[in-house]
Amino acid sequence: MKQGNILSRIAVLGLIGACLALLLTAPPLAQAQDPLPSWNEGPARQAIISFVQKVTDKSSPAYVPPAERLATFDQDGTLWVEHSLYAQAIFALDRVHELAAKHPEWKAEQPFKAVLANDREAMARFTEQDWAKIIGATHAGMSTEAFLQIVQDWLAHARDPRFKRPYTELVYQPMLEVMHYLRANGFKTYIVTGGGQEFVRVYSEQIYGVPPEQVVGSSIATRYEYQDGKPVLMRLPKVFFIDDKTGKPIGINLFIGKRPLAAFGNSGGDREMLEYTGAGPGARLMMLVLHDDQNREYAYGPAQGLPDTKVGTFSQALRDEAK
Amino acid sequence: MKQGNILSRIAVLGLIGACLALLLTAPPLAQAQDPLPSWNEGPARQAIISFVQKVTDKSSPAYVPPAERLATFDQDGTLWVEHSLYAQAIFALDRVHELAAKHPEWKAEQPFKAVLANDREAMARFTEQDWAKIIGATHAGMSTEAFLQIVQDWLAHARDPRFKRPYTELVYQPMLEVMHYLRANGFKTYIVTGGGQEFVRVYSEQIYGVPPEQVVGSSIATRYEYQDGKPVLMRLPKVFFIDDKTGKPIGINLFIGKRPLAAFGNSGGDREMLEYTGAGPGARLMMLVLHDDQNREYAYGPAQGLPDTKVGTFSQALRDEAK
Repeated sequence: MKQGNILSRIAVLGLIGACLALLLTAPPLAQAQDPLPSWNEGPARQAIISFVQKVTDKSSPAYVPPAERLATFDQDGTLWVEHSLYAQAIFALDRVHELAAKHPEWKAEQPFKAVLANDREAMARFTEQDWAKIIGATHAGMSTEAFLQIVQDWLAHARDPRFKRPYTELVYQPMLEVMHYLRANGFKTYIVTGGGQEFVRVYSEQIYGVPPEQVVGSSIATRYEYQDGKPVLMRLPKVFFIDDKTGKPIGINLFIGKRPLAAFGNSGGDREMLEYTGAGPGARLMMLVLHDDQNREYAYGPAQGLPDTKVGTFSQALRDEAK
Repeated sequence: MKQGNILSRIAVLGLIGACLALLLTAPPLAQAQDPLPSWNEGPARQAIISFVQKVTDKSSPAYVPPAERLATFDQDGTLWVEHSLYAQAIFALDRVHELAAKHPEWKAEQPFKAVLANDREAMARFTEQDWAKIIGATHAGMSTEAFLQIVQDWLAHARDPRFKRPYTELVYQPMLEVMHYLRANGFKTYIVTGGGQEFVRVYSEQIYGVPPEQVVGSSIATRYEYQDGKPVLMRLPKVFFIDDKTGKPIGINLFIGKRPLAAFGNSGGDREMLEYTGAGPGARLMMLVLHDDQNREYAYGPAQGLPDTKVGTFSQALRDEAK
């Protein structure tokens, strides 16, 4: 069987479209009967509700005990807004500016020179190696605790250029409702992100209700050493694990040791996670978030024939397969 | 500050001695008032109880909210019996015999030749490289699901040579009681083992009540690929992560993202985990299991001046530091 066939079989359940509202002001979750108040009526909403009913009803042949109820969510573009650059890439670029005084050599050295000159054209052409240099210079060389503090400080001050709000407020209300609904039905919800695990852990509990131990992401190596006589974990400029594409099922098995019952993604980086989820026995739910609302967020990707606007985004091919 | 000084400060709280009974017949956990019925009265028992009271009492200055109540346990020699060889090493040697028919070349090739000839002297001198070859030949080359089945089958039939019982029955009742007591007080209990993560996950829920996602261990690399059109994770003969010594705090941060409040170990492989635990603020509990009961289990290590009987065991120096 070709890979494409598998995905068309497993991902046919749902495409979330046209229903994504940005949580620009966060309403409290409704106490009402409706578990998904922000969702339009339609097949995607219905697929979620009937899936949850099936796996939680003890008399159903598709019943799954609570310990096996696992749902995984991509973050960027699935739970919160991404556009052109991930929030974490913007964090890295901001850090280059902040650290420039200590690195006079960067004025003449790429890729730092382009960042410091705000040369958008050059930045748009950055290779993976360029980004690796930037990550190494901005995400390593400090203890894990110092890094946590740096991220917290950045999140408190950084603003999305269009919405002028903290990134932690630019989350999708419908997806928060799905997470809440699944947890209320005995699911454990995990974030499985190509982004940095320690970056996302800083705010995952506060904005998604997902504790640090339920965030699986990309990571750099750390070394156990002593600072002023106290043991610390020092972050090294060396990739340890990339939690993207085939890395997502690998990371899920490594960190969780169970196959998800439900998975939510939006881009080509989520393909294998959705496929791996769907290849398990019994009822499964796989969904893709489609970005077609240019007023309340960014419209990009194949929705309405719009071009992809970021590296590795949801490709037309993936949507065609899912259809 | 020297490392020795830190450990003497943090590990002074308790040495568990003389009180370990093998769970040869598993009594149901007592419903009585006493949460630790198998424990002798003494400073170790008292240290556990007063620690739990302190961190769970909202009026205590050492109060810790439930989300931060994390306890980590080494496995081999801390939760279940180890002697001369880890159970997993015996599994690997059994697999060599089982696979030998498919590998006629092993009769002339070390380290397999020594295993097949039951040459105990040669096996006692195996280097880390020899073991790496054996692990590669016995733990890789199959999907994660096939491996799970192989381990289950082995556990069902393998018996400890002295006690003639399945390994999964050779667990320490006092330690089960500590795990249960901590969980009843809002702690999340994790196993943090130098052994194979996917090996321990096969039985951790059943025998310790610890689900797969709360087992952190050593792992080999996996590759996402297709078998008969279905995606599988193929186990590769390549080390991914060694969760021992400095690897334990690194693994704890990587998998959990929180520092333990309490940690339990028995050997030099647990030293940094105990030290990292103790270096956090507030009340902390660090304990070492001491093996001095040669009738009900194996006596080894520095207890009563007995020699170490396994690689990497609890060293005299570690016990001296803890004292």
